[in-house]
Amino acid sequence: MPYEIKGLNEECGVFGVFGSQEAAHMTYFGLHSLQHRGQEGAGIVSSDGIKLRQYRNRGLLSEVFANPQDLDRLEGTSAIGHVRYGTSGNNSISNVQPFLFHFHDGDVALAHNGNLTNAKSLKQKLEDEGAVFQSNSDTEILIHLIRQKQDLDFIDALKLSLNEVHGGFAFVILRKDQLIAALDPNGFRPLCIGRLSDGGYVVASETCALDMVGAEFVRDVLPGELVIIDENGLRIEHFTTDTELAICSMEYIYFARPDSIIHGVTVHNARKRMGKLLAKEQPVDCDMVIGVPNSSLSAASGFAEESGLPYEMGLIKNQYVARTFIQPTQELRERGVKMKLSAVRGVVEGKRVAIIDDSIVRGTTSMQIVRMLKEAGAKEVHMRIASPPLKFPCFYGIDISTRSELMAANYSIDEMCKMIGADSLGFLSVESLIEAIDIPDAGNAPNGGLTVAYFDGKYPTPLYDYEEGYLASLNKQHQREEKQQ
Amino acid sequence: MPYEIKGLNEECGVFGVFGSQEAAHMTYFGLHSLQHRGQEGAGIVSSDGIKLRQYRNRGLLSEVFANPQDLDRLEGTSAIGHVRYGTSGNNSISNVQPFLFHFHDGDVALAHNGNLTNAKSLKQKLEDEGAVFQSNSDTEILIHLIRQKQDLDFIDALKLSLNEVHGGFAFVILRKDQLIAALDPNGFRPLCIGRLSDGGYVVASETCALDMVGAEFVRDVLPGELVIIDENGLRIEHFTTDTELAICSMEYIYFARPDSIIHGVTVHNARKRMGKLLAKEQPVDCDMVIGVPNSSLSAASGFAEESGLPYEMGLIKNQYVARTFIQPTQELRERGVKMKLSAVRGVVEGKRVAIIDDSIVRGTTSMQIVRMLKEAGAKEVHMRIASPPLKFPCFYGIDISTRSELMAANYSIDEMCKMIGADSLGFLSVESLIEAIDIPDAGNAPNGGLTVAYFDGKYPTPLYDYEEGYLASLNKQHQREEKQQ
Amino acid sequence: MPYEIKGLNEECGVFGVFGSQEAAHMTYFGLHSLQHRGQEGAGIVSSDGIKLRQYRNRGLLSEVFANPQDLDRLEGTSAIGHVRYGTSGNNSISNVQPFLFHFHDGDVALAHNGNLTNAKSLKQKLEDEGAVFQSNSDTEILIHLIRQKQDLDFIDALKLSLNEVHGGFAFVILRKDQLIAALDPNGFRPLCIGRLSDGGYVVASETCALDMVGAEFVRDVLPGELVIIDENGLRIEHFTTDTELAICSMEYIYFARPDSIIHGVTVHNARKRMGKLLAKEQPVDCDMVIGVPNSSLSAASGFAEESGLPYEMGLIKNQYVARTFIQPTQELRERGVKMKLSAVRGVVEGKRVAIIDDSIVRGTTSMQIVRMLKEAGAKEVHMRIASPPLKFPCFYGIDISTRSELMAANYSIDEMCKMIGADSLGFLSVESLIEAIDIPDAGNAPNGGLTVAYFDGKYPTPLYDYEEGYLASLNKQHQREEKQQ
Amino acid sequence: MPYEIKGLNEECGVFGVFGSQEAAHMTYFGLHSLQHRGQEGAGIVSSDGIKLRQYRNRGLLSEVFANPQDLDRLEGTSAIGHVRYGTSGNNSISNVQPFLFHFHDGDVALAHNGNLTNAKSLKQKLEDEGAVFQSNSDTEILIHLIRQKQDLDFIDALKLSLNEVHGGFAFVILRKDQLIAALDPNGFRPLCIGRLSDGGYVVASETCALDMVGAEFVRDVLPGELVIIDENGLRIEHFTTDTELAICSMEYIYFARPDSIIHGVTVHNARKRMGKLLAKEQPVDCDMVIGVPNSSLSAASGFAEESGLPYEMGLIKNQYVARTFIQPTQELRERGVKMKLSAVRGVVEGKRVAIIDDSIVRGTTSMQIVRMLKEAGAKEVHMRIASPPLKFPCFYGIDISTRSELMAANYSIDEMCKMIGADSLGFLSVESLIEAIDIPDAGNAPNGGLTVAYFDGKYPTPLYDYEEGYLASLNKQHQREEKQQ
Repeated sequence: MPYEIKGLNEECGVFGVFGSQEAAHMTYFGLHSLQHRGQEGAGIVSSDGIKLRQYRNRGLLSEVFANPQDLDRLEGTSAIGHVRYGTSGNNSISNVQPFLFHFHDGDVALAHNGNLTNAKSLKQKLEDEGAVFQSNSDTEILIHLIRQKQDLDFIDALKLSLNEVHGGFAFVILRKDQLIAALDPNGFRPLCIGRLSDGGYVVASETCALDMVGAEFVRDVLPGELVIIDENGLRIEHFTTDTELAICSMEYIYFARPDSIIHGVTVHNARKRMGKLLAKEQPVDCDMVIGVPNSSLSAASGFAEESGLPYEMGLIKNQYVARTFIQPTQELRERGVKMKLSAVRGVVEGKRVAIIDDSIVRGTTSMQIVRMLKEAGAKEVHMRIASPPLKFPCFYGIDISTRSELMAANYSIDEMCKMIGADSLGFLSVESLIEAIDIPDAGNAPNGGLTVAYFDGKYPTPLYDYEEGYLASLNKQHQREEKQQ
Repeated sequence: MPYEIKGLNEECGVFGVFGSQEAAHMTYFGLHSLQHRGQEGAGIVSSDGIKLRQYRNRGLLSEVFANPQDLDRLEGTSAIGHVRYGTSGNNSISNVQPFLFHFHDGDVALAHNGNLTNAKSLKQKLEDEGAVFQSNSDTEILIHLIRQKQDLDFIDALKLSLNEVHGGFAFVILRKDQLIAALDPNGFRPLCIGRLSDGGYVVASETCALDMVGAEFVRDVLPGELVIIDENGLRIEHFTTDTELAICSMEYIYFARPDSIIHGVTVHNARKRMGKLLAKEQPVDCDMVIGVPNSSLSAASGFAEESGLPYEMGLIKNQYVARTFIQPTQELRERGVKMKLSAVRGVVEGKRVAIIDDSIVRGTTSMQIVRMLKEAGAKEVHMRIASPPLKFPCFYGIDISTRSELMAANYSIDEMCKMIGADSLGFLSVESLIEAIDIPDAGNAPNGGLTVAYFDGKYPTPLYDYEEGYLASLNKQHQREEKQQ
Repeated sequence: MPYEIKGLNEECGVFGVFGSQEAAHMTYFGLHSLQHRGQEGAGIVSSDGIKLRQYRNRGLLSEVFANPQDLDRLEGTSAIGHVRYGTSGNNSISNVQPFLFHFHDGDVALAHNGNLTNAKSLKQKLEDEGAVFQSNSDTEILIHLIRQKQDLDFIDALKLSLNEVHGGFAFVILRKDQLIAALDPNGFRPLCIGRLSDGGYVVASETCALDMVGAEFVRDVLPGELVIIDENGLRIEHFTTDTELAICSMEYIYFARPDSIIHGVTVHNARKRMGKLLAKEQPVDCDMVIGVPNSSLSAASGFAEESGLPYEMGLIKNQYVARTFIQPTQELRERGVKMKLSAVRGVVEGKRVAIIDDSIVRGTTSMQIVRMLKEAGAKEVHMRIASPPLKFPCFYGIDISTRSELMAANYSIDEMCKMIGADSLGFLSVESLIEAIDIPDAGNAPNGGLTVAYFDGKYPTPLYDYEEGYLASLNKQHQREEKQQ
Repeated sequence: MPYEIKGLNEECGVFGVFGSQEAAHMTYFGLHSLQHRGQEGAGIVSSDGIKLRQYRNRGLLSEVFANPQDLDRLEGTSAIGHVRYGTSGNNSISNVQPFLFHFHDGDVALAHNGNLTNAKSLKQKLEDEGAVFQSNSDTEILIHLIRQKQDLDFIDALKLSLNEVHGGFAFVILRKDQLIAALDPNGFRPLCIGRLSDGGYVVASETCALDMVGAEFVRDVLPGELVIIDENGLRIEHFTTDTELAICSMEYIYFARPDSIIHGVTVHNARKRMGKLLAKEQPVDCDMVIGVPNSSLSAASGFAEESGLPYEMGLIKNQYVARTFIQPTQELRERGVKMKLSAVRGVVEGKRVAIIDDSIVRGTTSMQIVRMLKEAGAKEVHMRIASPPLKFPCFYGIDISTRSELMAANYSIDEMCKMIGADSLGFLSVESLIEAIDIPDAGNAPNGGLTVAYFDGKYPTPLYDYEEGYLASLNKQHQREEKQQ
């Protein structure tokens, strides 16, 4: 997609269903509502109690299943599905999930949202022992760990294996007669359980998928839990009790759909509170508040409400943004962002505007938005970001690329403001972020049960294979900061 | 598109450019921003000063020009383009515009937004005189009328011909060395002129297309005007002086993009004022105001502002709505609208909600929205429509189908409220609609220069070929109304 | 198709059926067997007795009807279809046939194989009278001529119109309740009638289409005939009696399928006789005879039989030749022909070879074939062409391009032999060609009922619009020939 | 492909190149000439000396690489490629080769033509030791065997592993700086080496691929050999010396392209000799000989030559046979074979015909051909098969399905003749088959270096995992044969 204007990318969405007459179709619709979590590939594996069947390909869900027959062939009453984000160099069909493995003693399919921090060393160790990997995906590691434990039954082998992998993971696993879901000990990624009216169960990355398929919310999967669904119903076991909630705060800030409810918090409401607290911390003297559609509209409305300023639609999003290979040439150059967003001249002309965005990654979109608003006649453009400055990478399942690309890791807020061309720039504090989200059942977990390491660099777990690279990047920053002083 | 939830369909968008080094590419980007006016087909014709070249097909613009070579082949410094809405039975490639005609004395290409009210009788007369039509489109009629006047030069023949057709029309016409635009005597459809920084000109259905390609707004095309652009620059002539502005009010209510400015009125601002006046006329005692995304968000924010109620994001639109042939079966049935819209439980649960929509056509979407909000826990759902009840068809270029399908033409507001399942239902008055739009240069034109016939049945022109059918349908309504009394 | 190795292109194949329960499907299979007559586009129009329905697009038949629904939608018991060859500049969807015209007094669809020699002047005259053409096709002219005669009934108007057009034409015309076929007064193109076992009728360009759909051959359509099929059965009328058979000899030489029978002559048998007579006229002292697959295999076997030499498979054709956009680069250049043909080293190595081809157009393929055989070890390569030298263009429906491209129009046989790199080169005489084909019912028609103007420049009709250009080209040749002397 | 009329399917074609500036493009063209060995999938892996890149998908080569960019991205100077035949249930993208494995100590890609007879037990053993397989392909087994031998260098590990697999295999293996080819100890499948003019090397399943890319034939790969190509050039090693040539006779009979030369024998010439010997063994008193195009034309010409009968083109093959999903309905049913083949009435009418085919698998095609010839007027149809009756399955890489489907395994020749509807039926003897092929360097190898087990059931190796099933099927046949007596 040549006109990609966002630098943050979710790694995936997962969905599973057990005990539904139309499992594959239900999975299709569940994945449809999780499409925002990954647009590069999609797949479904179904089970009819005897055999597992698979279909997957690159592209949007509707592109992958352009031919209804490909879905119809996925017979059975249980299924798992996956939507995937993939970095460009990595966008091979081999990496599209769910993975399906045929063993002489039974098929197993897996799908995964997250990132393992010890994947590289586990993979190297397994390879040295003779293992063969076909994909670049972390997901394949788990099946190798399980298969190494031939003397144990599947669930026991799985539990042991889940203790060998580190990082963030939400797995859904399908066997011919069993659906299993597992969440890492910190619950980095969201995962929830729903119940169908006819007694079947679904698991999904977000509650919006439950709503889509008409499932009633049962509860969130908690850190360290193993959800096992079979003909005897649903039972919850633990593969570890050494757990502490540290869910990714970016889910609330940017990734999750506003109608999803994660750990009791409606995402839209959390964003609106971020906007309100941002208005308190970083007030603006201006004529109106506008949000960057669609992800920042909640925060913008909160900002407007708190500051008593009118909330206006000064930017609109083109609803027909498609993948296009037509490149704007010559005088049309640099109009990329105009394919996606437009400033409403009749709203912003002659006005002092507060523009609310959810985050700044590389800063290029922010620059284009400010310029677009000024070209449309805005007298002043004050940018307010409803989250703290993104300075550190995520190792638990978000693609915040390398630190060298993160604007806030390399420039001060003043420098950023000048580069972006805004009249002022302000961010939300980490404290206010935590206050805005306010997970009710976080207990004594640090940071209210949230991971905020992208902002403060304090990761809730060891970084394993990433430790060295992280420290090196940190070192560079210190050198840079010292130079600045 | 199986999950179509809207009953109003714009008939087209047009774009033209003269004097740009990359005319076809510019037209592509201009059409991109007009995609909301038609998604069933698209095409571009370019001229290199000698020869006209064409490419068109069914589908979205990005689908039609999936292969960049098809655009690259459209050489030249002038071009016209078209995006098309087509009724299903009519969706043949023959009807995709622009039409290109090769004559021994020079090629002519035409694209058209609108509907001719005397098309049928003109066509029959022309056929009886030996004319051969290949498409079902009104557009083809104009070229036949022009060609009948062989002894006149093209512009004179065009002027005479434009006086023979009636109804709503915005034509763009390309000849090897000339770009022409023409607007009907009532200016039913929007059409504007822009200027490129290098001296070239563009014409477009909406100003958002000027913004897209970096053209400066010059002015709206006025009723009865003929805009002629060639190597000598731009000149404006008239094919009639018997004009009176009666632009389609639905452009402001629903069709046009909120950032477009039509006759001096920013569409978003007009919608916001509709919301404000609606709040005055049809106040609601409730906890919050929500809008149906995306077209009703402007009106909803106005309603909220005027009524002092919080404006909340209680419905969100799925940004990945794609054409899909996957049908939800059995227990998934009736979830169609959920593919497009979701209620935010965390916002509406336990709340009394005012939901603002721009219009009610057949009523099916309204029913689904009310049910969706109630399923998400809304205590009360009060529907407010930011336009008057749609009772009469449009004959000037909008597909409001037949009267038999218009809910408001067949039921009273009370009946509609019950059918929809809302706790109350209210519409904007025609007077307030006119006040909200408030075209500054409308002069003494009736209804402030707007067509409001969809609401009051008073058409600003004779209906020609439609007269009989219209009267018959009216008659049926009277009988129905008499029965009710 | 980058690797096109042939310079002759048939202009089309037509098929029609009346009175079959599955008319569109039958037309599909009929067209399948006529695919060799045109690969650039295909279409079908069906009639259910009330309404005509159309589907057409660019590409091979199987590509056009990739989606079975597009065929299933063509309901009705009668249909016509067309496969089309189109020159590259001309390959617009507008030119893909059959053309369907909707008139207020009834729909008409037409498909056409041939070329009108007075198309340009007719078109200009019609345009000057106000006619509007959408395609570049001659076919459209006929419908305009018919529609000009509003006071006559359709058949009468058609008969008059067929007398106004000149050149080669085989028309099939579908009306809601009637199928009509018409052949030009010289019968330049083949057209035949078949009968279905259930009483329905088919018309087709070649008898191979009758075999495909299980129709029994009735008879060839004769020059000047009008075949009218409706609910009363089949009747044959004449639009002129001034007729004289002059069927295109290239149909027998190259275009038609070897299993087709045209005017009583099986095409394969005619080709074999051409090979035999060629062996008599142009004998070769060599070790074996090979043919260029597939079109020259018949002639090659005749040549071998007559000369008592072994007939060997020294060249084979790749059965998986597909349109490809992959270009061979650098060291792979000039291997184009190898995608289509391969020399069998084990057959030709060390041998003196007679290679039989059906014709030489531009000579490029011949060069490549000779080189390929020599690279595979052939000691001598003697080329024999089973038709006379192609020196003059066709104006009746074959694309033999301009004279400037015809090798034999510009070089002597000796020059050609050197350019091609062959050890000797010989052609069949016109007399032997006529003797080989030997149409039984040709009567007193000149040249045994054949057009041989491509070889001797003596056209059986005036050339109308082409006259001037033809004479100019002839003049050039004379100048060249004089220079040579 | 609904109209598949052949029951024998080759399992694959392989190609590899080292030291060419356009390795991936060359591989594309090499695979193009091997397309007849597999049409269900294709792929290429290239190496730029550092990294291996892959592209593969289902479909014909030209479909897989429809977008030239997908080929252009495969940078580097070495590459391997594969065309694949896949049984329908097995046609997953996971099974399309080459397989590419990324290891922390280097990437490896493999492609394979053949079938392993101990795959199932090896796979089960490996799985019990923890191995994870993603495909159903035998190919994956080899990489697992290699990776188990971590203490050995790659070539040593490969040699040991090649001794653990049994059956028929021709492997091409690509590492970042090395191309390796290996052939099983019986040389069941063909594999040859070619040299490029610039010093690079290619390996390919057949010599026709060398001709295509302009490589000079070096020699066939011999049983048990390992060909290693790297920057030091080409060297040949052996992984076993316990070898004995037993190349699949079906390669000569049906699979290989007629222009390929395998072990010194041109395939066309071998087929022609089969035809000659068939004429001696099974003479026919008739008017002409015709062959089933294209695979049986060589044998037919030999038959004609030997018997002194005219060789005629009584059947022609439609060159535009495409995958189609259009089904002939009602009266068009059973016309499937007519899409592919047509009888030439003008040739066979009233004649006594000897029709030569290469083999009979299920017999359905033979029935249709006989019926087609008789419908075209043939007075007598004598079928002669240029190979012995196919009675036993192949376990070394051909898909001759199960024995239950082989007509000759279940019926006597007389029964077959009646079922097919022929006037007589005769087969070539095994002795004559061997005499016809006559591999010059076969030495003392049994059956002249050929596998003829499909005819006599005497397999040159143990059958390992297939032993039990084979014996059971044999038993059934004995019971049947006893019943018949």
